[in-house]
Amino acid sequence: MIAYLSKYIAGLYRQSKKEINQEFQSVGIRATQGDLLLFINDNPGLSQKKIASLMILDPSLVGRDLKLLLDAGFIRRCNTPNDARIYQIFLTPKGQLLTNKLQKIVTNWWQKFFRKNPEVDLNQLINQLQPLYFSLIPDSTDSLDKH
Amino acid sequence: MIAYLSKYIAGLYRQSKKEINQEFQSVGIRATQGDLLLFINDNPGLSQKKIASLMILDPSLVGRDLKLLLDAGFIRRCNTPNDARIYQIFLTPKGQLLTNKLQKIVTNWWQKFFRKNPEVDLNQLINQLQPLYFSLIPDSTDSLDKH
Repeated sequence: MIAYLSKYIAGLYRQSKKEINQEFQSVGIRATQGDLLLFINDNPGLSQKKIASLMILDPSLVGRDLKLLLDAGFIRRCNTPNDARIYQIFLTPKGQLLTNKLQKIVTNWWQKFFRKNPEVDLNQLINQLQPLYFSLIPDSTDSLDKH
Repeated sequence: MIAYLSKYIAGLYRQSKKEINQEFQSVGIRATQGDLLLFINDNPGLSQKKIASLMILDPSLVGRDLKLLLDAGFIRRCNTPNDARIYQIFLTPKGQLLTNKLQKIVTNWWQKFFRKNPEVDLNQLINQLQPLYFSLIPDSTDSLDKH
């Protein structure tokens, strides 16, 4: 039944996030801040507004978390050539080291999960979710192509 | 890349929820309350604690929203035979009518979404996400079988 998709996706999202967040805390980072670092690693040089829009997060919450990551030395902001009020956001070397750890946590979690569910074809699932994700997120392919 | 699964699932979850929630509001119901009605419809007779655990939601938030649904006449609570302190939760006829509308909203949203993405096999995706959901949610198959 098609309406179950909402339930499955919500359950997978909430439970994976809950367990992965607990591991993020073990390396000293809070959930959304960890998600932001992973996203900036994939998409360097975007503005705060673009990050919030592509991650479907509240812009003011993103602003607060980016400020904390900036103060902790995990990211840096650079003026854009065209508009001094818009900053491009990048990881610092310190942020890159932490992000590598976060990537390992996320990868290990999913690998362990799929070992428990060998009947599901992991690559097939990724290949199906990827176009759905890009079709759903406003301007995602557009902005991601540029970086 | 396996770590992208978190990003795809988070994006699909947040964007679908955002758009579906807007439509829930048009029939006068708030997001989590709508999710609760749909869940109770699928799983009648569970306790508040079990609903929170299976939906991976905060028990105190679930308690507050169930109270509002109770006061609005959408659900009813019945004592369990074994323990007078535990209530089983069911939809009322009024709640059933509203839930039918919510189901149509969710189904229409996903159908429209898949029409825009004809390259993805909807049934295959449901068949892959279903076992993952049941393996992830604690005691889900167990409790769902009983109801």
